[in-house]
Amino acid sequence: MTVRVGVIGLGLIGADHVARLRSRVAGADVVAVCDIDSSRAKAIGESVGALVLSTATELVRSDAIDAVVVTSATTAHAEAVLACITAKRPVFVEKPLAQTAQECLDIVSAEMAHGERLVQVGFMRRFDPGYAAIKASLDAGELGVPLLMHNIHRNRTAPTATSAGLIRESVIHEIDAIRWLLAQEIQSAQVALPRPSPHAPQGVRDPQLALFRTTGGVLVDVECFANSQYGYDVRCEVVGSTGTAAIDGHGDAIWTRVGSASRSVHRDWRSRFGPAYDRELQAWVDSVAAGEATGPSSWDGYAATRVAESTVSSLATERIVAIEMIERPALYA
Amino acid sequence: MTVRVGVIGLGLIGADHVARLRSRVAGADVVAVCDIDSSRAKAIGESVGALVLSTATELVRSDAIDAVVVTSATTAHAEAVLACITAKRPVFVEKPLAQTAQECLDIVSAEMAHGERLVQVGFMRRFDPGYAAIKASLDAGELGVPLLMHNIHRNRTAPTATSAGLIRESVIHEIDAIRWLLAQEIQSAQVALPRPSPHAPQGVRDPQLALFRTTGGVLVDVECFANSQYGYDVRCEVVGSTGTAAIDGHGDAIWTRVGSASRSVHRDWRSRFGPAYDRELQAWVDSVAAGEATGPSSWDGYAATRVAESTVSSLATERIVAIEMIERPALYA
Amino acid sequence: MTVRVGVIGLGLIGADHVARLRSRVAGADVVAVCDIDSSRAKAIGESVGALVLSTATELVRSDAIDAVVVTSATTAHAEAVLACITAKRPVFVEKPLAQTAQECLDIVSAEMAHGERLVQVGFMRRFDPGYAAIKASLDAGELGVPLLMHNIHRNRTAPTATSAGLIRESVIHEIDAIRWLLAQEIQSAQVALPRPSPHAPQGVRDPQLALFRTTGGVLVDVECFANSQYGYDVRCEVVGSTGTAAIDGHGDAIWTRVGSASRSVHRDWRSRFGPAYDRELQAWVDSVAAGEATGPSSWDGYAATRVAESTVSSLATERIVAIEMIERPALYA
Amino acid sequence: MTVRVGVIGLGLIGADHVARLRSRVAGADVVAVCDIDSSRAKAIGESVGALVLSTATELVRSDAIDAVVVTSATTAHAEAVLACITAKRPVFVEKPLAQTAQECLDIVSAEMAHGERLVQVGFMRRFDPGYAAIKASLDAGELGVPLLMHNIHRNRTAPTATSAGLIRESVIHEIDAIRWLLAQEIQSAQVALPRPSPHAPQGVRDPQLALFRTTGGVLVDVECFANSQYGYDVRCEVVGSTGTAAIDGHGDAIWTRVGSASRSVHRDWRSRFGPAYDRELQAWVDSVAAGEATGPSSWDGYAATRVAESTVSSLATERIVAIEMIERPALYA
Repeated sequence: MTVRVGVIGLGLIGADHVARLRSRVAGADVVAVCDIDSSRAKAIGESVGALVLSTATELVRSDAIDAVVVTSATTAHAEAVLACITAKRPVFVEKPLAQTAQECLDIVSAEMAHGERLVQVGFMRRFDPGYAAIKASLDAGELGVPLLMHNIHRNRTAPTATSAGLIRESVIHEIDAIRWLLAQEIQSAQVALPRPSPHAPQGVRDPQLALFRTTGGVLVDVECFANSQYGYDVRCEVVGSTGTAAIDGHGDAIWTRVGSASRSVHRDWRSRFGPAYDRELQAWVDSVAAGEATGPSSWDGYAATRVAESTVSSLATERIVAIEMIERPALYA
Repeated sequence: MTVRVGVIGLGLIGADHVARLRSRVAGADVVAVCDIDSSRAKAIGESVGALVLSTATELVRSDAIDAVVVTSATTAHAEAVLACITAKRPVFVEKPLAQTAQECLDIVSAEMAHGERLVQVGFMRRFDPGYAAIKASLDAGELGVPLLMHNIHRNRTAPTATSAGLIRESVIHEIDAIRWLLAQEIQSAQVALPRPSPHAPQGVRDPQLALFRTTGGVLVDVECFANSQYGYDVRCEVVGSTGTAAIDGHGDAIWTRVGSASRSVHRDWRSRFGPAYDRELQAWVDSVAAGEATGPSSWDGYAATRVAESTVSSLATERIVAIEMIERPALYA
Repeated sequence: MTVRVGVIGLGLIGADHVARLRSRVAGADVVAVCDIDSSRAKAIGESVGALVLSTATELVRSDAIDAVVVTSATTAHAEAVLACITAKRPVFVEKPLAQTAQECLDIVSAEMAHGERLVQVGFMRRFDPGYAAIKASLDAGELGVPLLMHNIHRNRTAPTATSAGLIRESVIHEIDAIRWLLAQEIQSAQVALPRPSPHAPQGVRDPQLALFRTTGGVLVDVECFANSQYGYDVRCEVVGSTGTAAIDGHGDAIWTRVGSASRSVHRDWRSRFGPAYDRELQAWVDSVAAGEATGPSSWDGYAATRVAESTVSSLATERIVAIEMIERPALYA
Repeated sequence: MTVRVGVIGLGLIGADHVARLRSRVAGADVVAVCDIDSSRAKAIGESVGALVLSTATELVRSDAIDAVVVTSATTAHAEAVLACITAKRPVFVEKPLAQTAQECLDIVSAEMAHGERLVQVGFMRRFDPGYAAIKASLDAGELGVPLLMHNIHRNRTAPTATSAGLIRESVIHEIDAIRWLLAQEIQSAQVALPRPSPHAPQGVRDPQLALFRTTGGVLVDVECFANSQYGYDVRCEVVGSTGTAAIDGHGDAIWTRVGSASRSVHRDWRSRFGPAYDRELQAWVDSVAAGEATGPSSWDGYAATRVAESTVSSLATERIVAIEMIERPALYA
């Protein structure tokens, strides 16, 4: 079964998700789109062969779709998600779920009236291998009791950021990560503010340090720095009573335990090169669809096998063996 | 267009590719399979709803397919690939292309007779971001002239490895990587052998050190150690006349230039969390297809927004703010 | 000139400093010691050939000494340091300078009455190359304006720690590091407390998170965790408006700047191996004093030169050259 | 006892060792020097208050000295060392011991005639903590049986290097490290040569790859690249049958064992900050000798204690506490 998806809102992340659903997600097709900017909707819709609809309501009710992705502005989330619930459509909505907690409660109420879950919220850190590795360590009790959690969340630049927006749009990722990793609710919050960066927009408190305390007594700090100038750098360290688990800016996990700080070593090629195999077959499928072969050719297969054959002949003597090859045909130039 | 793929050979890597084509590659479907072990073919074919055919020849000729993946034993590669070329089918064949250089030449000849490329060989390192980063550095001339290249290729265990097999099946990955990264052919080869590991199979020379010299005067060493016991560890360092580019065992790239050794910092969330977004939407599409919502719920969306709202209220005072939430409904337990 | 040092207090750090002054510091000699435990004083004093005196006062006034090291209990610091100032003796006192700020002010007053500085306090992070590298980066303006500073200070176990002692004896290192690195005073302090570790002594709040704000608007957090179980781990990161400088648990410095995270590469052997050269000559001087040669021998010199000679002869042919050596004489067994 | 040292040869490394013996090595004094350049000998000798002698022979025979450091040109080593043995003087000689293996044998013979060891050769890697950590791992059998060893030895620039000199003066460090770490002799050598770097001096083969095989069947490669342009980078990895031990360019040790790559975590402050304590007390002793106090002052001691006191008062409430300090007196400006 192919899931026929309608996408509401085609800004940066919306366009990104359209491309993702078409070329990197299996079993889905983008069949309808809409955007408050109708020319943008038309351009993207036509480029992917999807229906271009005028409104979110029209899209949600269309028989052409099975499910909806909501990537419109945050202010428009609640209405779109509620329409999906009314229409009994599974819906994926980017974070935050809605503009206010009250709007979120309206969605919760509607979903409860419906009787089963229809909504998935875009807290995508739960799908990152680095965060998942920390989660696994915590769940296995490898760190003892969790006590502290340090988070860094830096962007290169954010010219339109506001003081509250840093929390509502950026720190909210860490808020979900805290709740998910620790399986505890957050009981209190505090913001501590250094002087603003000279690169922050006028009047905006950037960076900020948010402190959270959880029901289980864990103290969490989150540095949010939207105009760090140097890059995108997201890190996390959970400190337990017997060790720590952390991910660095590339998402690589590091554990400290008695006497050592360690990273995992891959068990086999599937974990190390799995994504490369995915990309390789995707490139092949794309080339087949395009009717033109790309990637390593028969010539490359010949050349490598020729070298390997000669190398094998050095096994007995450990001497240097010259390698002879035929000339490369023009087809493989 | 969906590419209808037939898969020949359903061992470890074959089964892996079937799963990959179905669930992680967009635009492809596995519609036919065959294997010398007919019960294995039946089990996998039925589980994915694909035709189960008796022979590679039958599969290649079937009208049901558009393209072929060859993941049978190396000894069977040449025959299957030649059949694909005869049938004018695009074919992806796992490395090595064939058992001998002569068989590879037969394939090259057949493809030349056909007049255009139909074959892609499974040298998947070209699709790894780490190797691609080294390639980009070299192509941009950032390292000066390449002079040396060091490679490590370690597996945990390989009970069926042979001395020649280490070269033909493992080092061949590095042989292709050398040719591709440097865009030079290999002129000579030499194997140097330490004492065998006590964990190597009886009579097998493991580890080995292979030395290659290229047409451009680059000297390359490759350590191949199939029974390292500790893990899968593949590394590469290219040494140029003004700096080096390397990838560590996780595929993270490190550059040395005057005075510093550096890793890149992500530019934005798309490079850091792109794969997590892919997995997130894949999980959502899968859950829609399965008719059961999973992942972060409306409740998670409410809880996070509630915390964010309270946090925002601390911005003005920098004081601790308590967070009140409704009780969690049973639907979200 | 050799500085004749008297040491007051011979506990863990005192004994350590005695050994340091005798064997790793040039130009000093330990000539007198005292301790409230007279048998400990006697044991250590006799082992190093130093006068064993009964009281700190007697030691401070002795003509045998030029300068004093105070490593007694914190409660005894003020009296000893004041006695040194009265006697016009240069004095090195372990941190903290005294038990209370008022006692510190008494010392400041006495030193001002004396008219010039006589006291050095043991804030030794200023002498660590990692901290010094951060300082140099800040002073050179490489990070832009400093905005935030994150610190980690973990010990393996501290069975006698108290909640206040964590601040007075451990965090005080970071307090000085903050003042020194930023060249700013601290304006306010706040402690935030997670649940105590089950490995903390009964009733002790361990770990703690201290927050400091400086006169220049920098916000600083310090995690202090005295019973982390896993090891001694001290880290520091200063976040500036255009980049960061950090040291990891080994004191290695890492910089982030636009697009990259970098470590320095050594410029020459003096920075990389300088300490090894120090240890090498120290070992040699010690062996001369002991009348018995150790370390690499003439035989090692011969063997290495013999191998090098043979290696040189392979330069022309790139062929394997066998190495012949005489049998190893018994003198070098 | 202070060891009175005479130094023969005052070039780069000689002058370095003079400074080392005077200011970083305990128990030694430089009392006599000589150099073929008499004005250089005069300048350095007078600056350190040492006798300036005309010849190595005169220095070796002088009653003013207890022991000799030979840091003259390699061609002059043998004569100076033999003179020391004749005079029964302990001697430290920089690597290589002598110009030829035959000269080394002459020294061995003279020392055997003397009947006990008098010579220590400057193979200083044995005194580096990183190499020592690998040695400890090997000796403890933590890596299983050693099979392979990879070495990198890069300098930034070496304008006077020769092809043979790279081996005789640079690779000789690795030759000793191989023999010492593995406790095995080297049986054969081979040099493999890529194209020379465009930054190598005219006609010089730089870089080189040397291959060694040991009596225990270990295969060792050494990359030597004297004109790498980017920095000084020395690395080493020993591959055993069950794991590896390596040091990176900063000398930090990394172990791979089943499933993990780990660095050590410090056990306590003595291993992490020991060298900082050494430097701290050295700076204090130097300041006492110079008659002028430096380093953290009483004011710093007061300020830190004042902050700590206020911080402690936040323990009960977790509220922000303002910090009041007296004005900084001019003495501490």
